[in-house]
Amino acid sequence: MTAKKIVLLILDGISDRPCPALNGQTPLQAADTPNLDRIAKQGICGIMDTIAPGIRPGSDTAHLSLLGYPPHEYYTGRGPLEAEGTGIHMEHGMIGVRANYATIGPDGLISDRRAGRIHDTAKLSRAIEEGVDLSAFHVTCTFRSGAGHRAALALKGDGLGSAVTSNDPKSTGLAPPLIEPLTGSPGDSQTSSVLNEFVRQSSEILADHHINRERKREGLLPANIVLLRGAGQMGHFEPFSTRYGMQGSVISAAALITGIGRVVGLTPVQVPGITGSVTTNLSGKVTAICRELKSQEFVLANIKGSDEAGHDGDPIQKRDFISRIDTAIAPLLALEGTLLVVCGDHSTPCSIRDHSADPVPLAILGDGVRIDRVAHFNEIACAEGGLTRISGGSLMPILTDLVDRAHKYGA
Amino acid sequence: MTAKKIVLLILDGISDRPCPALNGQTPLQAADTPNLDRIAKQGICGIMDTIAPGIRPGSDTAHLSLLGYPPHEYYTGRGPLEAEGTGIHMEHGMIGVRANYATIGPDGLISDRRAGRIHDTAKLSRAIEEGVDLSAFHVTCTFRSGAGHRAALALKGDGLGSAVTSNDPKSTGLAPPLIEPLTGSPGDSQTSSVLNEFVRQSSEILADHHINRERKREGLLPANIVLLRGAGQMGHFEPFSTRYGMQGSVISAAALITGIGRVVGLTPVQVPGITGSVTTNLSGKVTAICRELKSQEFVLANIKGSDEAGHDGDPIQKRDFISRIDTAIAPLLALEGTLLVVCGDHSTPCSIRDHSADPVPLAILGDGVRIDRVAHFNEIACAEGGLTRISGGSLMPILTDLVDRAHKYGA
Repeated sequence: MTAKKIVLLILDGISDRPCPALNGQTPLQAADTPNLDRIAKQGICGIMDTIAPGIRPGSDTAHLSLLGYPPHEYYTGRGPLEAEGTGIHMEHGMIGVRANYATIGPDGLISDRRAGRIHDTAKLSRAIEEGVDLSAFHVTCTFRSGAGHRAALALKGDGLGSAVTSNDPKSTGLAPPLIEPLTGSPGDSQTSSVLNEFVRQSSEILADHHINRERKREGLLPANIVLLRGAGQMGHFEPFSTRYGMQGSVISAAALITGIGRVVGLTPVQVPGITGSVTTNLSGKVTAICRELKSQEFVLANIKGSDEAGHDGDPIQKRDFISRIDTAIAPLLALEGTLLVVCGDHSTPCSIRDHSADPVPLAILGDGVRIDRVAHFNEIACAEGGLTRISGGSLMPILTDLVDRAHKYGA
Repeated sequence: MTAKKIVLLILDGISDRPCPALNGQTPLQAADTPNLDRIAKQGICGIMDTIAPGIRPGSDTAHLSLLGYPPHEYYTGRGPLEAEGTGIHMEHGMIGVRANYATIGPDGLISDRRAGRIHDTAKLSRAIEEGVDLSAFHVTCTFRSGAGHRAALALKGDGLGSAVTSNDPKSTGLAPPLIEPLTGSPGDSQTSSVLNEFVRQSSEILADHHINRERKREGLLPANIVLLRGAGQMGHFEPFSTRYGMQGSVISAAALITGIGRVVGLTPVQVPGITGSVTTNLSGKVTAICRELKSQEFVLANIKGSDEAGHDGDPIQKRDFISRIDTAIAPLLALEGTLLVVCGDHSTPCSIRDHSADPVPLAILGDGVRIDRVAHFNEIACAEGGLTRISGGSLMPILTDLVDRAHKYGA
């Protein structure tokens, strides 16, 4: 028997280092994980450097690497990926920029970098997209809201560069600096001029917008300036379906991950109630995976809450959320003719509250895998598995081979 | 003590995936292998991606990689290697082409792609080599028989290309197409013209040959056309003896493997009764290895039958042939001062009846190796070995080091 479909379930930041609060165990070791352990026991395990040993991955570079798009070749900054994640179709050469709605006081200083954690900004973004006119620069722009205070800007025009600074002062009480080119290239200079003009015009639109007038009446901070960062030029991505011969979907609350899925041609799937945090709708996500498999050959699903708990430095919360993941994924173990692949994208140790380069655990369950002796899904046990230690760039070739879609090199 | 000689025993396609017919074991796990297990137990083990993780090797690219000639640098198609395997000395720049004797009917359609599984075609090949005249193209040709209906053609001439199509229609009942250039380069165009003229002249020679007249009288299919495929240009191979400081031999029933050995300068050894199948003369091969070691420092031996059983999708036959291999190799365990290296070149899972990228098991027995805790030679057990997971390109450097022929890098 050979499996024909693949579920790649990425437990974001799941792996960790020994935590004193857990008697020296990692949150994954300490969690109650009968289902993850069954995947490990009935499948093949290993550990994985999603980029390379000792390289601390971002979620973006890690996911690109795991999908088989080497980040040193394909990663051009977070902007274009976030823009795709908000639903903007980024064409090759367009500039994508991350945006935050923020609050600036009458003194010209930033008073809140998230505009009082504003959300539901779609109307504001539409007003900006419709009102801003960059025709003097022969540039058109698209501006879309993401989750919460987040948004993304895309610029289309000839010869635009992406090596520019940000107008985000990074802390409150400071004035937003002008955006400046980082090189002497005319394209970077042009982009910085365009972005400064975008900030100027969008600020005028926001200053007078009825939503901001209402927010002020209600004692809320107005979203009266857009902070821009992470500009990058959209690259050329060979479609996933061309590269692997499989059609696929992406399921994630994070615009960044959805955007990465979109740029490689995976279809984004909406799931109600997913939040990208420990409060997310886990069972809704699992139901969506099972539903997508009826029509797709590949499903990428990301569960983000474990990463968040790591960033918060909270091993108890991380452990408990992992136990909840374990309960929620039970239906995936009953899938037939499907490889179930579970791994992290990077470690997020509670002790450092950020990503680390510690390898992530990996388990593959399904027809054809060589079943090793590993019986637990955690950082230590998986290191004794039959896959030994692989790099993230090897994952898709290995999976493609297991589902018998690989091509022979030679005869 | 340091071993001075190396036997590299390649069990072609030996590794597999769990087989339902063997209660979830692989044929290698299910076979009776006290000798292979002793090599594992008294040696060091690991698993190996002969090319790279997830890359499905051909036998040709795998053997090149294992001998330390990276296929992406050295592999130019199977033609030149097969030509060497038939005994043609391929010089750098010559074009090698695989050939099959086939039967074409009076209607111009191919009726049998193997000419009734003809064998002993040496006289036909000699008649073709002597009769075909390509001097109008300033080209000379050599044509030699291989095993069964197989043969190989070599062309020598200035500026010949190798990117050309085949005249093999791939199924019976179709007319052989003309060979065409795959690019606009004059060299490819020249080669396709030469090959079409070769087919035309050789067909005339075959039509009238007394062997074919006799075959017809006996009710056998005539070998009256040559089908050509796999054209490639001979590259430049640094000799094995220069690269590693060892003289060596190659023992294989497969012309392809013999050819690979020859192109790197290994001496081919004839062994009576070897067939490249499960009926081969295993003990004759083992005797030849022991004899070659008296004068050579390196012996490459390939046993093909396990691959054939995998291609046939027959786990029982594969298991039983592996047990027979195990019995036959007993004399190799008594070799002194010699590293005995046993591995696959690729996996050939019965479930997919073709090569896969699953890593192969590897064991090295001999003076100086670090003995690990692995006690069985199979896909699962070897993954826990002291070599962990290596790539095929690392094998010869590791072996060269073990026999103390490596050079220090630095001081």
